[in-house]
Amino acid sequence: MPDSAAPASPTPSPGQGESARAVTPDTTRFVLLHTSHPGNVGAAARAMKVMGFADLVLVRPRFADVLAREETVAMASGAADILARARIVDSLAEALEGVSFACATAMTPRDFGPPTHAPRELLPRLAAGPHRVAFVFGSERYGMSNEEVYRCHACISVPTHPEYGSLNLSQAVQLVAYDWRQALGGFGVQPRVPDATLADGVAVQGALEHWREALVEIGFLDPAAPKKLLPRLQQLVNRAQPTAEEIHILRGIARAVQRAARKGRH
Amino acid sequence: MPDSAAPASPTPSPGQGESARAVTPDTTRFVLLHTSHPGNVGAAARAMKVMGFADLVLVRPRFADVLAREETVAMASGAADILARARIVDSLAEALEGVSFACATAMTPRDFGPPTHAPRELLPRLAAGPHRVAFVFGSERYGMSNEEVYRCHACISVPTHPEYGSLNLSQAVQLVAYDWRQALGGFGVQPRVPDATLADGVAVQGALEHWREALVEIGFLDPAAPKKLLPRLQQLVNRAQPTAEEIHILRGIARAVQRAARKGRH
Repeated sequence: MPDSAAPASPTPSPGQGESARAVTPDTTRFVLLHTSHPGNVGAAARAMKVMGFADLVLVRPRFADVLAREETVAMASGAADILARARIVDSLAEALEGVSFACATAMTPRDFGPPTHAPRELLPRLAAGPHRVAFVFGSERYGMSNEEVYRCHACISVPTHPEYGSLNLSQAVQLVAYDWRQALGGFGVQPRVPDATLADGVAVQGALEHWREALVEIGFLDPAAPKKLLPRLQQLVNRAQPTAEEIHILRGIARAVQRAARKGRH
Repeated sequence: MPDSAAPASPTPSPGQGESARAVTPDTTRFVLLHTSHPGNVGAAARAMKVMGFADLVLVRPRFADVLAREETVAMASGAADILARARIVDSLAEALEGVSFACATAMTPRDFGPPTHAPRELLPRLAAGPHRVAFVFGSERYGMSNEEVYRCHACISVPTHPEYGSLNLSQAVQLVAYDWRQALGGFGVQPRVPDATLADGVAVQGALEHWREALVEIGFLDPAAPKKLLPRLQQLVNRAQPTAEEIHILRGIARAVQRAARKGRH
């Protein structure tokens, strides 16, 4: 099913305008233990890359050639460079070379294991420190062994529904990569639409007065018994926070209404 | 590839202990437009469910039978109930029935479109309000059309690497579901390991003194020229924040060291 393996992005890259701001891939490492499904390795690479991480290490994956498998490459989509520089090693100890703080993502309780935190609780503190960090993910079926968890300095647990916490492996990688990137300061979101100039109160009142006249002219508003129509419209307009241009449009409509009403009277 | 389609969870459910705390699925709706890949629909259902959401609406998916396809069901894993109650409709307008605030996840700039926000900026404000919310996701290949974006009250854009923002559709659903759940108050993370009793300062000093003696006995520490060994050990122990039980173990080791040293001397 190569057809469905590499869905194109629903969220295309913001484009060249932003690329002037060079971003060095973070040195954070992602370690996948004994991964069974090539698709997950590819999806994890893509999930890392969208958050600006590039260091992927696999510990004894089920398939020794997983990095070159068609399904892996298809699910990695544009993240083939992450696969190209990924390493396969024999043990978690090797995978953690050069790392000073390892976060396990095991969710089941371990006696004597490191303390468990929500990512958004631990990661900002960790980002403020001097650590070279690795995030370690267990196999799809069995998670992490006790021995693997014991090597880690903390466990992080993504808060999920108490009765259904079954996160897919690559989804877990995506959430942790996102929270870690946010903790590191995040990437910006470009306001895609330039901020419009909001209309000032005088312009709004002018438009409302214009509409009051038009509504009287077309017989919708009885000036002798106005009820609460104007205050209601006022509230509606206030909530909408119209721009200067929108007020201009509203006055244009009022003007057209008046013209039509006058024509009808002749 | 049913073998690799439904990887079991690396993060098993926290178990029955927590299920006493009943959690009603939120009424938030997730709308997928013109989705091509059945696997994405299944993975989206699973991503919603782990965050406690259950209302999935598909607008004109590529395959009319997508909810029943083998790949969809496989990728949904334990979220078959979400597929069972999902609806297929003909238009975004229908999909948004009953919704008072629709968030587009389109990332490309639209003139006259609604303002774009980072999820963590908009969602807490939205959660504090009275809205019935929908999150709308465009197709894998083409995202959302202008007309579809215009129907929405806001755009949210997950901040990704400026040069590679290609989020997989189901990963985008996962991130938005997570941020929205967090904005709604989140699920708890159960501390899986009961908090240990930290050792008090007296116990720590006692152990250090014990070790000082042992180190002298084995000739590692020269009491006439102690240099900075003890302050260094003190700092190390302070950073480790040992528990009472760990101090007990450290003293046991010191005792054993002394015994061995004395045996050697006889």
